[in-house]
Amino acid sequence: MNDATPPVRLALVVGDPAGISPELAARLLAEPETVGRAAILVIGDRRVLERGAEAGGVTLDLPGVEDPRSAALEAGRPQLFDMANADPAGILPGQASAAGGRATLENFTLGLDLAREGVVEAIVFTPFNKQALRLGGSTHEDELRYAADHLGYRGQHAEFNVVDDIWNARVTSHVPISAVAGLITEERILDNLALTVEALTEAGIERPRIAVAALNPHAGDGGNFGREDIDVVAPAVEKARQRQWAVEGPYPSDTVYLRARDGKHDAVLTMYHDQGQIAIKLIGFDRGVTVLGGLPVPICTPAHGTAYDIVGQGSANLEPTRRAFKIACRMAESRRGKAAAE
Amino acid sequence: MNDATPPVRLALVVGDPAGISPELAARLLAEPETVGRAAILVIGDRRVLERGAEAGGVTLDLPGVEDPRSAALEAGRPQLFDMANADPAGILPGQASAAGGRATLENFTLGLDLAREGVVEAIVFTPFNKQALRLGGSTHEDELRYAADHLGYRGQHAEFNVVDDIWNARVTSHVPISAVAGLITEERILDNLALTVEALTEAGIERPRIAVAALNPHAGDGGNFGREDIDVVAPAVEKARQRQWAVEGPYPSDTVYLRARDGKHDAVLTMYHDQGQIAIKLIGFDRGVTVLGGLPVPICTPAHGTAYDIVGQGSANLEPTRRAFKIACRMAESRRGKAAAE
Repeated sequence: MNDATPPVRLALVVGDPAGISPELAARLLAEPETVGRAAILVIGDRRVLERGAEAGGVTLDLPGVEDPRSAALEAGRPQLFDMANADPAGILPGQASAAGGRATLENFTLGLDLAREGVVEAIVFTPFNKQALRLGGSTHEDELRYAADHLGYRGQHAEFNVVDDIWNARVTSHVPISAVAGLITEERILDNLALTVEALTEAGIERPRIAVAALNPHAGDGGNFGREDIDVVAPAVEKARQRQWAVEGPYPSDTVYLRARDGKHDAVLTMYHDQGQIAIKLIGFDRGVTVLGGLPVPICTPAHGTAYDIVGQGSANLEPTRRAFKIACRMAESRRGKAAAE
Repeated sequence: MNDATPPVRLALVVGDPAGISPELAARLLAEPETVGRAAILVIGDRRVLERGAEAGGVTLDLPGVEDPRSAALEAGRPQLFDMANADPAGILPGQASAAGGRATLENFTLGLDLAREGVVEAIVFTPFNKQALRLGGSTHEDELRYAADHLGYRGQHAEFNVVDDIWNARVTSHVPISAVAGLITEERILDNLALTVEALTEAGIERPRIAVAALNPHAGDGGNFGREDIDVVAPAVEKARQRQWAVEGPYPSDTVYLRARDGKHDAVLTMYHDQGQIAIKLIGFDRGVTVLGGLPVPICTPAHGTAYDIVGQGSANLEPTRRAFKIACRMAESRRGKAAAE
């Protein structure tokens, strides 16, 4: 981004009020580097945010806006749209509640509305609590599915888990192991590779080096333990390479993450849920970031949860939130550049 | 083991002569604690072993035995049966060869023969090289399958991968992912749990705490992503508990290794190959030990390979070999105690 470009307009959605979300948001907003990078609209309850600032040991001076749709957003001066929807008196720290879940959902919903209307170009949210969301009336399986639905987006999109600079995507997710092999098609692999190339490029990784995990043990050992890696995965990798993508594989899934950890790949595309999740949770996904790519607006959040056990101590690791913010800014800037070039 | 018990008679089989096997064997034999723990018969070529001693910076004073079957084995005084089968002049360091593979196979075969005849009670071998073994005429998929065949053992047995005190076993192994779910039965799970309980108990872990990994993501999420964890795995765990085994699960496989790493379990039983291998390779299986349990004789080996790239430097990590030796001794002692009690 050059200096003449206006800063990215970003919604910082305050997550579950009973956990560490408010203190993470407050601490992030107290960092000059952060607030200078984007024109931030904070969406949340001012009282909750003040309690977070106190827990985080920071002082916030957040001007309020009357109407989030007409606020003059500018870098270096985050502003708050006070949702006034979560009276701290009624929300016990460290406890999931319907009130907390409802407020979280309202904050997020406004963020999505503003994104759909073009008011903001990126969304970062601090952690939600699934139990509270359900108590608060949410019927969606997860916040990311809710986002796609609420944005009315029917196109390809994918969730990425980013840990230690390794991006992770998967061809299948919440399906039984017995169904996985039947769902692995060249088309699905290529669709996911396309989303991965796009998301990483947007995030500033030029020509991302993507490793594709094999479906079967030892990549099928030359066909002895299944032919899918020969008949489906390898041809998909070949087609991806014909598109000039830096894709390699299929690699046996018990060593592909050793390669990625050694810096040989920027992303790993796995064939099924646990293939990637086992690895990235061991590598330390709690330090990671979840990115929803492919949607009309980039949405990023730290991968960890609401950490009810350490709420109010200001001891939570801010780095994942900081990284979520940076990735969201970078992706929004890239999209803007892309739109301008078109 | 009390002092009156004669020491375990153990065959130390020298592995591939072109790799780090000879130096690992030589360095192990130079440790007073090791040679004092068991009555060791070394099986290998004296010239190869001498080259290993030189590389390892140790001096060996190994008396030779004429007949491995009538040697008076004693603790504190390892003896060598010189196979005279691997002329170092014809074996290039760092290169797989038919001669090296053939010699390795001969060493191992004699060890197995001696075990079958009751001459030794445990076998430890330093790494083999699969390519050399094939060049040398081996037709078995791996050394452990060869061991079972050569011992003429048809009963249940299982390979365990031990890393950082976490033992790993699996219900299915070298099969396509599409076949896994159909192979998961209560009986197979219970058989593997029985072998796991036995092996860990023999290795000195009283009442081992075993975690069973779920087959499906999120353990099937209450049946939404497959019913096997509810219909098959959970009932098997319940039956195992009725046998008074300390078995828990099914745990989602993307977090079960975090629990094990935190010391909550001594062993993890996975449902398929990569479920465990992804985790233990990331944890650091190169530091680990492979144990063949359930056979008439315990067989242990370091999990790493022949490390052709660092041969002759004496820089290889001896700890996995040391641990393989200790586990083999402990298991043989336990079996002896069990035989005496019967």
